[in-house]
Amino acid sequence: MKKTKVAVVGYGTIGQRLADGVVLQKDMELVGVADVAPTLALRALKEKGMPYKLYCPVPANIPLLENAGIPVTGTLDQLLDQVEVVLDATSAGIGAKNKEMYKKRGLKAVFQGGEKNEVADVFFHGYANYEKGLGQQFLKLTSCNTTGLIRAIDCLDRVVGMQKVAITIIRRVADPGDYNRGLTNALQMDKAPNHQALDLMTIMPHVQATGILVHTPVTHGHIITILATPKKKLTKEQAVAEFRKHPRIRVVRLEDGFLGNASLFKYARDLGNPRGDMYEIAVWEESITFSGDDIMFAINIPQESVTIPETLDGIRACMKLQTDRLEAVGTTNKYLGMIAR
Amino acid sequence: MKKTKVAVVGYGTIGQRLADGVVLQKDMELVGVADVAPTLALRALKEKGMPYKLYCPVPANIPLLENAGIPVTGTLDQLLDQVEVVLDATSAGIGAKNKEMYKKRGLKAVFQGGEKNEVADVFFHGYANYEKGLGQQFLKLTSCNTTGLIRAIDCLDRVVGMQKVAITIIRRVADPGDYNRGLTNALQMDKAPNHQALDLMTIMPHVQATGILVHTPVTHGHIITILATPKKKLTKEQAVAEFRKHPRIRVVRLEDGFLGNASLFKYARDLGNPRGDMYEIAVWEESITFSGDDIMFAINIPQESVTIPETLDGIRACMKLQTDRLEAVGTTNKYLGMIAR
Amino acid sequence: MKKTKVAVVGYGTIGQRLADGVVLQKDMELVGVADVAPTLALRALKEKGMPYKLYCPVPANIPLLENAGIPVTGTLDQLLDQVEVVLDATSAGIGAKNKEMYKKRGLKAVFQGGEKNEVADVFFHGYANYEKGLGQQFLKLTSCNTTGLIRAIDCLDRVVGMQKVAITIIRRVADPGDYNRGLTNALQMDKAPNHQALDLMTIMPHVQATGILVHTPVTHGHIITILATPKKKLTKEQAVAEFRKHPRIRVVRLEDGFLGNASLFKYARDLGNPRGDMYEIAVWEESITFSGDDIMFAINIPQESVTIPETLDGIRACMKLQTDRLEAVGTTNKYLGMIAR
Amino acid sequence: MKKTKVAVVGYGTIGQRLADGVVLQKDMELVGVADVAPTLALRALKEKGMPYKLYCPVPANIPLLENAGIPVTGTLDQLLDQVEVVLDATSAGIGAKNKEMYKKRGLKAVFQGGEKNEVADVFFHGYANYEKGLGQQFLKLTSCNTTGLIRAIDCLDRVVGMQKVAITIIRRVADPGDYNRGLTNALQMDKAPNHQALDLMTIMPHVQATGILVHTPVTHGHIITILATPKKKLTKEQAVAEFRKHPRIRVVRLEDGFLGNASLFKYARDLGNPRGDMYEIAVWEESITFSGDDIMFAINIPQESVTIPETLDGIRACMKLQTDRLEAVGTTNKYLGMIAR
Repeated sequence: MKKTKVAVVGYGTIGQRLADGVVLQKDMELVGVADVAPTLALRALKEKGMPYKLYCPVPANIPLLENAGIPVTGTLDQLLDQVEVVLDATSAGIGAKNKEMYKKRGLKAVFQGGEKNEVADVFFHGYANYEKGLGQQFLKLTSCNTTGLIRAIDCLDRVVGMQKVAITIIRRVADPGDYNRGLTNALQMDKAPNHQALDLMTIMPHVQATGILVHTPVTHGHIITILATPKKKLTKEQAVAEFRKHPRIRVVRLEDGFLGNASLFKYARDLGNPRGDMYEIAVWEESITFSGDDIMFAINIPQESVTIPETLDGIRACMKLQTDRLEAVGTTNKYLGMIAR
Repeated sequence: MKKTKVAVVGYGTIGQRLADGVVLQKDMELVGVADVAPTLALRALKEKGMPYKLYCPVPANIPLLENAGIPVTGTLDQLLDQVEVVLDATSAGIGAKNKEMYKKRGLKAVFQGGEKNEVADVFFHGYANYEKGLGQQFLKLTSCNTTGLIRAIDCLDRVVGMQKVAITIIRRVADPGDYNRGLTNALQMDKAPNHQALDLMTIMPHVQATGILVHTPVTHGHIITILATPKKKLTKEQAVAEFRKHPRIRVVRLEDGFLGNASLFKYARDLGNPRGDMYEIAVWEESITFSGDDIMFAINIPQESVTIPETLDGIRACMKLQTDRLEAVGTTNKYLGMIAR
Repeated sequence: MKKTKVAVVGYGTIGQRLADGVVLQKDMELVGVADVAPTLALRALKEKGMPYKLYCPVPANIPLLENAGIPVTGTLDQLLDQVEVVLDATSAGIGAKNKEMYKKRGLKAVFQGGEKNEVADVFFHGYANYEKGLGQQFLKLTSCNTTGLIRAIDCLDRVVGMQKVAITIIRRVADPGDYNRGLTNALQMDKAPNHQALDLMTIMPHVQATGILVHTPVTHGHIITILATPKKKLTKEQAVAEFRKHPRIRVVRLEDGFLGNASLFKYARDLGNPRGDMYEIAVWEESITFSGDDIMFAINIPQESVTIPETLDGIRACMKLQTDRLEAVGTTNKYLGMIAR
Repeated sequence: MKKTKVAVVGYGTIGQRLADGVVLQKDMELVGVADVAPTLALRALKEKGMPYKLYCPVPANIPLLENAGIPVTGTLDQLLDQVEVVLDATSAGIGAKNKEMYKKRGLKAVFQGGEKNEVADVFFHGYANYEKGLGQQFLKLTSCNTTGLIRAIDCLDRVVGMQKVAITIIRRVADPGDYNRGLTNALQMDKAPNHQALDLMTIMPHVQATGILVHTPVTHGHIITILATPKKKLTKEQAVAEFRKHPRIRVVRLEDGFLGNASLFKYARDLGNPRGDMYEIAVWEESITFSGDDIMFAINIPQESVTIPETLDGIRACMKLQTDRLEAVGTTNKYLGMIAR
């Protein structure tokens, strides 16, 4: 099988996980990763014996990396020469600059949610609008919350149709090991409506969405409560059944010990998942309740890893590896080991 | 003016604030407070020179208190002999036991939200069902979240009518200085629907309510997002205007620096409010958004002090100090210095 | 009595408390405070009815303040025209710029710990080196941790002599209501030795000091563990007795319910102290232990308010209100209500 | 090679990691693990396909486990029949009860730090007193903090001799996913001296130790500051060199991005370590400072995994797999992949 040659540019929280995810896709080849400074992520890569080749976009920084004992294979140009598609996981705003390079070379690229929508031809979600990404040059993924949110809404929408949703995002403020974005003993409000609701409407224009976002001083995942107005009546049993059928959604129960976001993190660690990551969102079965015919429920978003599957779907779409939506996401799922439970 | 003689039984987080609130009511007299052990609250009372007389329900504990230098005026019986109404702010479950004593003496009593509804003749909220409490012997206050939530819902309900509400409670897990109820780096889920939604329906039976509650590791107030379905169309301007007219609701703005629950606490400290307390709930103006005709907004609940005004209303109701709802709450407001802003 | 005319420039966390502290000094007069934007502190001042006159250093900002309903009495120049001494509590670095203005006018000024030492003629601590500040034009206060630390070390040093100290500062990362300096689920290290140890040696050059500082995600006070090597043998009883005699030190006990930094904050709130502040540091009696002849103990630093007394001492020193150290600090203590307990 | 047959009783935070650690030892065989309820740890074991056989000490609970889909191989008796040594990682106090069973069968057992010292013949640390454990029936491991602390002290003690140490433990209050032991926005004091100092003296009786422990609201590791009085003069370079030679100690630098306890956790995740665990303690190079001739430095304790190597050493000692200390710990290190860096 010919493998699609992939570069991951930016080896931070998302980039590391994208690289690991690409390696698991049997029809893709990770040619290398790119980053500019001897971060902990690169120091760990070195301690593991450099399983991925490192390229450095800023030649002047190569001595800095080498002084830290981190071998550099070449420049970003040299990496780009060898690939067909780039997963750009650089800090917000850098992707837009990198795009010019990708354009010049006629490379395809998938950007992360931090970039502005204008960076891409399509604002993309593997499950919700796979077809729109087919053959396009530039895709931009939804952000972590939006990715997980759309998974859940799209799952129900395809069965009963969805009119509108109102969400409350209870957001983690930093990732483990992030000292810059902290919040201490405070719940911080954002202006409503939050961007995730607006983004949802961009991806699923037939659904009306709004919501409020509150930052909380935790690191292990967001919780979103969703009040969704379906077009057809939906029971709790139906909703649970649909969620269970979805390979990227886990239905969990308080009764079984899944008491909150930290339980999912603990569980993923106990599963032996690399980095204690989980690709799936979780829905709490006991959170499902009804306001008239509207269904209300809570989901968990593992912010560091949730966008990985949909980003890999993005490669499949822009490279036309599969033209059928379910075949495409199914292939990603198979290689990531995601199955309906 | 004849003053209603009041005892506060239980001098903890709520009891202290009730005592301070009673003292501010010019038509009430705080005869004394009761508690059983040399807590920090009682040590502080002593350091302040015992502005309130202390009575001890457990005579065997009197030496314990006196050894800590805290003078004891008498037993609980001696306190109850002198009063007409008791504010029972003991730990959950103790109130039900105390009730027998109050009953025997024909005393009126107002219990806090921790007790079961059965403890009382009426489940009470000053603004929402004042009339039901008139002349009753035993009232039970709504809990902190429910008290604040009902303030906001009742405020709109009286103008446009309310059909149903769906709430997400982002709950503080402990009070400042509480080491027993902590939560660290986790968001913890409760089974839906939360009791606050059920309680709301008990007080306002014409409104349908449900919701999800999530515990968060903070101490300075809960934030509740509310999605409310009005009977008549409501604009943002109308809603803001109604909230502004309410003496127990503050409309605040992110733009002015009210960034979250901790800002309200800071502001109350800067105001010089005793203990940095605030009786008012806050509504964030920039949180107001619409899902179709449904209004969504976020409120802040200062958990330590929010029930104080409605508890004082409870005295007015059971003692029939005022028979008119607005006159009663207005009197409480006047003495507490609460005005529409 | 002629009162010393004082201005407080910068009305933030420290400035507000300095203003309140000056007002309590019967031999001082607070002419006004100065700040540049409609912060929550100024909005609260307005809601309280402007007990302090506000002056604005940036005339262009006056409309901004007035649009927020905050009356402005005049410019900073107009404030400085009326005073003899300035307490500069502006953000770090601004004080150095303001100094030129004070210099031009021949005004005395006391700067806070955030400024560089060069800003002042004397690096000052009321108890430890009062005499050095006598009649000087510019003093700089020790920072919050250093102020409290020196109180404790100086207290013992004057009795048994101190050779050296090694400290571990367990630092709060933000104040309540501060969303900018958060830290979430992490302990963050600083390079050793910490500045507080170096500062201690500047103020008390006969003591050798070093230490390590760790940031923690809390808001209600620092805890410092101190290992001190006295020149003469010291028993636990002696140490406790000396600490008890000090009006700016409280000896507290775990046994009495003072379980940590949040207990002191709670206690200060229950005392009815404005803003729940406490000027005193606390020493935990049960923390006192010995490593050979070295004494080890833990103190609590209420970061928002601890420097207020020593800053007021600074006015006394530079204005020569009292020439005797104990008379000076005793006067400050008397007006602040601080007594040995 | 004949393999030592091992059972792990108690499959919680420590038990899971012990099981994983035993499996890595080529001269040991994990016969099975035992636990009593369908915890998340066992649900994860099931989802992984039961790589370890599960035995249930409470036969009445077997249906509970099987209803959760978790297959049970047999009773605890049946497990004990097959093994030579037990690693008891049950909750504090249960080990003492289990001991009777082990005794009756003449099994050797290694208990964790939560048990009382009386449970064992020897209070054990692989590096510090390996020889004392040789051939003994019952060992008790030092707790997580003490294990890491002794590693560092023993490391220096063997080179320059150690007279005394004074420590400040800045303790994490809960593990990730633990909702029961939380602490919110508070630093909580313990009575001094802490048990870790006393335990150190039990293991290393020639060293005098004391210290203070403060609980902090974090989950990713303790930080301990140590002030150690060596018998011979020690330079920073020497100390760093000795630490670097130790396979269970990592020397890390703030400069390299190791900013605090959460950085070590992040780094271990990025290394791909199962559960993001790290067996090594870390010493911050920039934390090393001197108080006269006393050396002060800070170490990081990964509380969930730090005791695993020394527990495996315990098997080697009680089973006399190796009689030489360095050979024994070296074998454990080799199989765990721990090398001097």
